Amino acid sequence: MDKKGLIIVLSGFSGAGKGTIMKHLLKKYPDAYHLSISATTRAPRQGEEDGREYFFRTQEEFDAMIANNELLEYATFNGNSYGTPRSYVEKLVEEGKDVILEIEIQGALQVKKMYPEAVLLFVMPPTANDLKERLVGRGTETADVIAQRLAISSRESQFMCGYDYLVVNDDLAKSVEQVHSIISSEHFRTARNEDTIKTIQKDLKKFERR
Amino acid sequence: MDKKGLIIVLSGFSGAGKGTIMKHLLKKYPDAYHLSISATTRAPRQGEEDGREYFFRTQEEFDAMIANNELLEYATFNGNSYGTPRSYVEKLVEEGKDVILEIEIQGALQVKKMYPEAVLLFVMPPTANDLKERLVGRGTETADVIAQRLAISSRESQFMCGYDYLVVNDDLAKSVEQVHSIISSEHFRTARNEDTIKTIQKDLKKFERR
Repeated sequence: MDKKGLIIVLSGFSGAGKGTIMKHLLKKYPDAYHLSISATTRAPRQGEEDGREYFFRTQEEFDAMIANNELLEYATFNGNSYGTPRSYVEKLVEEGKDVILEIEIQGALQVKKMYPEAVLLFVMPPTANDLKERLVGRGTETADVIAQRLAISSRESQFMCGYDYLVVNDDLAKSVEQVHSIISSEHFRTARNEDTIKTIQKDLKKFERR
Repeated sequence: MDKKGLIIVLSGFSGAGKGTIMKHLLKKYPDAYHLSISATTRAPRQGEEDGREYFFRTQEEFDAMIANNELLEYATFNGNSYGTPRSYVEKLVEEGKDVILEIEIQGALQVKKMYPEAVLLFVMPPTANDLKERLVGRGTETADVIAQRLAISSRESQFMCGYDYLVVNDDLAKSVEQVHSIISSEHFRTARNEDTIKTIQKDLKKFERR
């Protein structure tokens, strides 16, 4: 089948469980997927390491990356910039590896514009109430922050149709398998296998001439 | 997820093994898939039963089905007409069942034109030589018939890009799983889940107003 890897974007509402799906996907299929590491201007939190969780950069360094077209996508949240270094992703894709970008909606739509062959997955909880309950259940955020998160989710939901696939995260193990199945299946698209098609067309032609 | 079933078209070169894949798929997942039964003007072979292998019809009856728009697609091979009765397929799809049409390329492209949401799979052997060897290996056809089949395959190969997915049938069990994975994943396309998206958009909006 196709030799090139896929660019996979995983987004979803805050509290929908995309981080957990991702963690289990990488654990279950360690050789199949690679995680893209973002660059950010925010300060490292305790235990975070440069090049592992993020590439920590100054605002000047980050702006230079933008100016040099070194970012595949970037966006700003809470005054901090986040972006995906292009070279790392493109290198892995050329090597035939599937790279997963866990990024927000603004960035996801930038990726789709630049790489129409990218596969965009959106993770949502079964219902809006489930989302609220999950955020409340965490017990780590104030009511104000939760209300703000839900308002952001509502605005984000307007862009869901820009994604290719929707994963309703009701059961973690099932969602992990769904994501794996979606990505595996995408490799079989005819548009990703033009070389294979051209080869058999050419070889069958030879039989015709005999 | 979506409540409607999918129209799935499975085509492939003669000798590529699509019939075998289909048989094993239906055996392994008997509740997941339904097989569409074609109407044909050819005479029943020994052991074939009307309504099981085919709906056997006279040419006049077949022409009336065409005139009444009762066929989803139809085509002619070796002087015999073959077609897919529309009502049976549409009824199953409305009931949320996935219906598989094992049909030739002319018919497949008719289906895609009328139902752009249909999923078209093309089954091919790893190489053109494998195809030839499989046809020779059957030992049931003369060299002339095999040459004719290969010439037909060559012409058919020109339309492969009109399909959505390509299944390289190297290993039967693997191909059956690939077909199952492709169909399962198609259910998660955002375009097939617009109701789910509209519902969560509406429900999240309520949180925003509070």
